[in-house]
Parts: sequence; C-alpha cells; structure tokens
Amino acid sequence: MEARETDHEAWVAQLHARISQLLEEGRPRKAQIILEALLPADQAEIFSDLEEAEQKAVLQGLPLEDVADILEKLEDEEVAAIAKWLPPEKLAAILDEMEPDEAADLLGDMDPDAAVRILQLMKSCDGIRPLLLHPDETAGGLMTSEYLALGRQMWVERALAAIRNWESAREYFHYFVVDEEGRLLGVVSLLQLLRAPAKAEVQDIMDRNIVSVPLDADQETCAQLMSHYDLTALPVVDENRHLAGVITIDDIVDVIEEEATEDIQKMAGSAPLDKPYLLTSAWYVARSRVGWLLILFVTSMLTANVLKHFEGTLSKMVSLSFFIPMLIGTGGNAGSQTTATIIRALGVGEVDKRDVLKVLWHEIQVGLVLGALVGAVGFLRAWTFDGNAAMGLTIAVAMFLIVFWANSVGSLLPLLATMLGVDPALISGPMMSTLVDATGLFIYLTVAQVILHL
Amino acid sequence: MEARETDHEAWVAQLHARISQLLEEGRPRKAQIILEALLPADQAEIFSDLEEAEQKAVLQGLPLEDVADILEKLEDEEVAAIAKWLPPEKLAAILDEMEPDEAADLLGDMDPDAAVRILQLMKSCDGIRPLLLHPDETAGGLMTSEYLALGRQMWVERALAAIRNWESAREYFHYFVVDEEGRLLGVVSLLQLLRAPAKAEVQDIMDRNIVSVPLDADQETCAQLMSHYDLTALPVVDENRHLAGVITIDDIVDVIEEEATEDIQKMAGSAPLDKPYLLTSAWYVARSRVGWLLILFVTSMLTANVLKHFEGTLSKMVSLSFFIPMLIGTGGNAGSQTTATIIRALGVGEVDKRDVLKVLWHEIQVGLVLGALVGAVGFLRAWTFDGNAAMGLTIAVAMFLIVFWANSVGSLLPLLATMLGVDPALISGPMMSTLVDATGLFIYLTVAQVILHL
Repeated sequence: MEARETDHEAWVAQLHARISQLLEEGRPRKAQIILEALLPADQAEIFSDLEEAEQKAVLQGLPLEDVADILEKLEDEEVAAIAKWLPPEKLAAILDEMEPDEAADLLGDMDPDAAVRILQLMKSCDGIRPLLLHPDETAGGLMTSEYLALGRQMWVERALAAIRNWESAREYFHYFVVDEEGRLLGVVSLLQLLRAPAKAEVQDIMDRNIVSVPLDADQETCAQLMSHYDLTALPVVDENRHLAGVITIDDIVDVIEEEATEDIQKMAGSAPLDKPYLLTSAWYVARSRVGWLLILFVTSMLTANVLKHFEGTLSKMVSLSFFIPMLIGTGGNAGSQTTATIIRALGVGEVDKRDVLKVLWHEIQVGLVLGALVGAVGFLRAWTFDGNAAMGLTIAVAMFLIVFWANSVGSLLPLLATMLGVDPALISGPMMSTLVDATGLFIYLTVAQVILHL
Repeated sequence: MEARETDHEAWVAQLHARISQLLEEGRPRKAQIILEALLPADQAEIFSDLEEAEQKAVLQGLPLEDVADILEKLEDEEVAAIAKWLPPEKLAAILDEMEPDEAADLLGDMDPDAAVRILQLMKSCDGIRPLLLHPDETAGGLMTSEYLALGRQMWVERALAAIRNWESAREYFHYFVVDEEGRLLGVVSLLQLLRAPAKAEVQDIMDRNIVSVPLDADQETCAQLMSHYDLTALPVVDENRHLAGVITIDDIVDVIEEEATEDIQKMAGSAPLDKPYLLTSAWYVARSRVGWLLILFVTSMLTANVLKHFEGTLSKMVSLSFFIPMLIGTGGNAGSQTTATIIRALGVGEVDKRDVLKVLWHEIQVGLVLGALVGAVGFLRAWTFDGNAAMGLTIAVAMFLIVFWANSVGSLLPLLATMLGVDPALISGPMMSTLVDATGLFIYLTVAQVILHL
C-alpha cells in the first residue's frame, strides 16, 4: 500500500503493464487474481487503460459483482462502449449487481430499444424504472432508490434488526424515517439507534430538523446544501414530501469537481465538455469552442474600426502602434484577474448581487494602486525605448487609465450578469478582454492626441 | 423547511432581520431561542452577518456547545476577530467544546502568547497540542485527533460497547483497527460490527486493504484519494505507521472547493487569496495581483520590439496596424481555450504527462479546423473593410497560422510545466496570451511582407 501513497500513477502503470503481459502470455486467470485483490477504483483505472481485446479476456472470468464495481467507476462513455460488445444476457446480469442509480445512468445513455431489451432480461429492474424518468443533472437523476426507510413507530431493536438483515451492498450511516404514507419525517443515525433503549420508538429519537430537496432540484443546489450542512446523505422528496431516494456524498464530490471544471471551461470561453478530454473527438472539441471564438472574433473587429478612426494620428507617428499590444494586453490581464476573483467569490457564495457597491469600491482602490504602479513602469519603458519623454508620459497616463477602467469593468460585468440571470462565468475572460481592447485603444489614442498634440 | 429548499438566501436574510430587530428591542433571549432552533451552518451564517455589539448580546446567553458549533462554521478570520473580544476564560471553555482540529486551527491563527494562555485555561488540551505541530494544508493539519481506535483482538461486542459509550459529539461510520503498538492494520464499519458474531475478533472481520496518508501529505493528495476511492474517512499515519488521526469527508469537500478556487485565480494570473473576498483588504488584493501583472507587462514589451522590427512595413501601409488587436486577441482566445481544457484535464487526472503526443495531435486537428473557419471569416472582414482582396488573403492566412500555432502552444505549455514540476495553472491564460501575442505579430507581419510584397 506504500506505493499508492507515494506515487499512485506509477503504481497503477506498473500493475497495468503486468496485467497486459499476463494476458498476452495467455494467462488471464493470473491477471484476474491480481485485479481481484485491488480496490474497485483501482480495478477500474487499470481496466479502462486495457485494449478492447484485453478487456474481453479479463471480463470473461471475473465474478459479476467485480465487473459491476468496475463499470460503476468507469466514465459513462467507456461503459457505453463496453455495453455494445457484451452479450445482452451478461449485461443484464451485471446490471442486476450494480447500484440502481448507476444502472439507470447506463441504461439512459443506451439506444432506447436496446435499453428496453436489457430491462426485460433483468431480475431487479423495479428500483431502476422510476430513476429513468429524471434528467442526469437533477436530484432525481443523482439519487439512488436503494435505501432503507424506517417507520416512525418502529421500535429501536426492530429498526436495528431490519438494518442488520437488509440485503444490500450499500452501507448507510443515516436512515430516514417516514410516516404511514411514506412522507419524510426525520433522520436517525446508526449510532443514535445503538445508543437508544431497545423499546423506544424511532420517532422519539430521530432528528426532525432535516434538509431535503425536490426531485427536480439542480445538482449544483444539492452540492451546495450538502457542503453547507456537512451532510453525508441528502433525502429527495416528491411534491407530496414522499421520500423518493437518497443522494450520497460520493456522488456529490464528483458533482463539485464537475461544476468547477464547467466554470473553468466557460471562463476560457468554450462550451463545457461533458466527457473526459481524451475520449472526446477533435471534431467535438472544435465544435465546443468555435461558437465563442467566432463571436469574440467578430466583436474584436470593432478594434479595427477604432484604429481606422485614428488613422490620421497613427500615420503621423507610426511608433504609436508599437505599444498597442502591450497596452491592451495588460488591460485585459488586469480585467481577467478581477473577473476571475469575483466570479469565484460569487460561485462559492462569498459575494452576492447585493454587494455591488462594496465590490466596485474595492476594485476601484485596487485599480488605482495597480494602475499607478504599471503606469510608472510603462513610463520608464517608453522613455528608454524612444528617448522620448512625451511618449513616456502618454504611455504612463494611458496605462493608468486602462488598468483602472479594466478593474472597474471587470468587477461590474460578473455582477451585472448575475442580476440578469446569466451565468457570470460566461462573461469573463475573453469577453471582457475584447471589451477592454476596444475601449482601451480609444483611451490610448485620445491620450496620445492630447499629450503629443497630434 | 420549504423556504430553505426554494430560496435559502432570502430565508436567511429574513431570519437575520428578525434577530436584529429582537436584539434592538432588548429581547436577546427571544433571539437566542430562534437561533437555537436552527442547524449550526445556518446559525453561523446569520451570526456572521450581525454587528459586533449584536454578536456580543447573542453570545452572552447561548449554551457553550452552540457557540462552539457556530465558531466551527465561521471563517478563520471571523473567529479570530471574535476571539479578540471574548474573555479568555470563556474562550477556553468554548474551545473545550470544539472539535480538536477546529480548535487547533483557531489557536494556530492566534498570537502565540495568547494561544499559550488559552491552552493553559483549557481542560481538554491533550488532543490539541499534537495538532498544532502540522501546517494547515497537510494531512496532519486537516485531521482530527478525536477518533476511537479499536484493538485488533477486541471482541465485536466489546467494540460495539466501546463505540456506544464513547463520549464524543463526533459520529463515525468507520473505525480503524490498530495493533498493540498503535500501528494501523485495517478498518471496520459499524454495520460490519453489527452483523458480526458477538465473540468474533475485530481483526477477523476488518478490511485490510486500506488507503492511508502520511502526516505531511498535501491536502490536494488527500482530496484526490478520498474522491478516487469514495472514502468518508481517511486515516493519517506517522512514519512508523502509527495511527495519528482521521480526516473526514466534510473537511475534504471544503478542500476541493478551495483548490478549484486556487486554480481559477492562478489561471487568471493572480496569487490565490486565502480569505473570503470581502474580508480581504484592497491593499492585499492588489499585492496578490501586482507580481504577475508586472511580469506579464514587462514580457509584453517584447511586442513593441517585434513591431519596431517591422517599422518599415508598417509605415508603408498604416492599415496593417488596424488588424493587430483582432489577430492577436483571437490567437490569445484560441490558446486560452486550449490551456484551460488541458489544465483542468490534468487537475482531475484525465490526462497526465505521458499523454503529450496524444494531446498535441488532438489539438493540432482542432487548430486546423478552427484556424480554417476563423481564417475564412477574417478574409471576408478584411476584404469588405478595405475592398482589398490581397489584404483579405493576408488576414486569412495569418489568422489560420496564428490559431493553429496558439492551439499547439496552448496544449504543450501546461504539459511542459507539469514535466518540470511547475503548477500548470500558473502558465495558462495571461502567460500564454503574452507568448502568442509576440509570436503572432511576427507571423502576421511576415505573411504581410510576402503576400503584399512590402
């Protein structure tokens, strides 16, 4: 286990090489024994790196539960690929061993006709059917139907016996309590049950102060609630408060990572990829980026108009154009620093739209300090470049104004987007650079006209 | 509870207004009753929005455990502010009620003399002292010392009795098993204990295949392991494999959010803020950004040299300069899209440094497609702008080459950084724009010389 602690990647690569070699030598049983000794997450990591023929050889002899564990850990697209070559009867048997929410995700990604055929071959499809109704990114799509609800009048010893005898690979620490109609009333932990008198009723020891979400709640809301309240299980209820399922923390950890990835991709002006990078075709990646790239390209054409407007000034002094990329690039950088900070503060809830004035005042101060510093360095640069102090002064004043302006725009844009109900991550980065580019050129050349009398 | 599901913020604001009003009317007891009915996360959210005088009035009458719960949920800086005006005896009594890892964080942030004085006033400081030795962002700083280790030869019924009688507000589902010297051997869940025969030994039912981290493991490593293996508790061991503490999933959820924030801020070229935005002074924010802003400003001065090199070409045709911002801006955008995708893929482990060639080939294809599209639009724009087809051709060819080049550089930079052991998030965004700016200008003006015979 030491290897896993020090260099997980190298350890996995080594095991992968060993298993590949054993399969090549025609010793699949030996390869399976190595795999079976690993934790499911590692089994899946190694399995996913094998060639299709190797995967087939390994799957042949592995116990169904192990196969189910591996498929649960793989990316949806990898499972879909495997589902295509597995015989339907085998696939149905594997799905029977999988957790219902994972099985439902897999069936939801399949061709509908194939999914129906597989469902008919399955033994335990009752828990899965209702899960197929909800979109993947909602509470209904995230929850599992494999949970044990306790009746409110159950004695503690009966509840403990029910938990002990419950036939499920899923282990819970919290159990939800429902009334006679199945409506959610409270929650009780296994430890609370262990510590309570045997003949007490569950409703007398449960916590009634609980947080739940409706079936159509967005996955981001679920993640924020579980993080805010430090929950490990979140109950999902229908419109009549009937308990419909439970979301567990391991699924939410994946959601938190997914949402951060989406924010990062949107901030860089590309539509989020919903698959792992290397599994996504170049064509698909290009499609996810082309929209924003073209929108920004077309808006950036505005800069050509601004420059044409100053054609007379520019032709009088060609060296003015030397500083264009430096000035607008720095303006864009200052603006990006600001938007990234504000967008993330909005995302984790440190700031909300009521804080507009506080944030603006904050960034005005930051803009003054940074503008003054960058302006001073700009003066030195332009002066030494041309030996022209008036040029140095022009760059210094323009740089100061552009950075100050970029900070103000950069702080207002994301807050404005939030007020209009638009995702602020979409407005950041490139969008704001393009805006600052055009206005920055206007500032620069106007300052040049005034100071250099052009 | 419905309000919490639909609009959490409005509900909190309403409670906050009610509590403020009660305090103003001199009815702190009533305000406390409302607070006591809430979950700790909500108590803390409301408490943190109160004025200092209001906080004092509320704290006066709240039970010590409630105060401890609230302080655990507040930001470190807010707790530090409160610790300054609380009488030392009261603070010590509150710390006695807090979880040891949270208490150690608070003491670690205090002035060392004050912290020593408080420690002397505390009753239960034994668990805290060792935690003070480890940096906040390592496994040792994240772990709690409040856990129950089971001896390997313990009978199941004895283990269950020990768990039942353990006096701690902390509830665990997994318990770690140690040998006579306290060395970590395995893990057992409460449910496994419940299902096992009363006289079985713990070592016969425990899982031996466990994941652990050393005291100095980075918090990001801990987060990746807990996410990869779907763990809710991660044991921390010293160099002799003695169990030293346990990291729980709620702390890791915070770490995952923190690390994503850090990545986003670094990608926008600013040092990460370690406090919530509005609690950070403008001066501190400016300091976190000025380093990168100046470095990028100074490197961007290179663009002035490139342009000066082409001074002859530019003065022959001033309209060439009109397209400069558009060309390098679009190159920067294409590059940012690429780096953001690759950095995130590296961050969540979808890609590693051995995938260099695969990634490069992928981005070369994407660059060809996007370059061709943007080049075509650029041709139309430049042609209609000037009525000059040769100018249109120049822009089209330059745009195609720049986008293709930006995609290749954008995919190689983060991977190169990883190979050199540098954080790839630092290389992205602005850094890569600056590089693409200078090289893009060179490409553009060389193409112009060739096509326009300048």
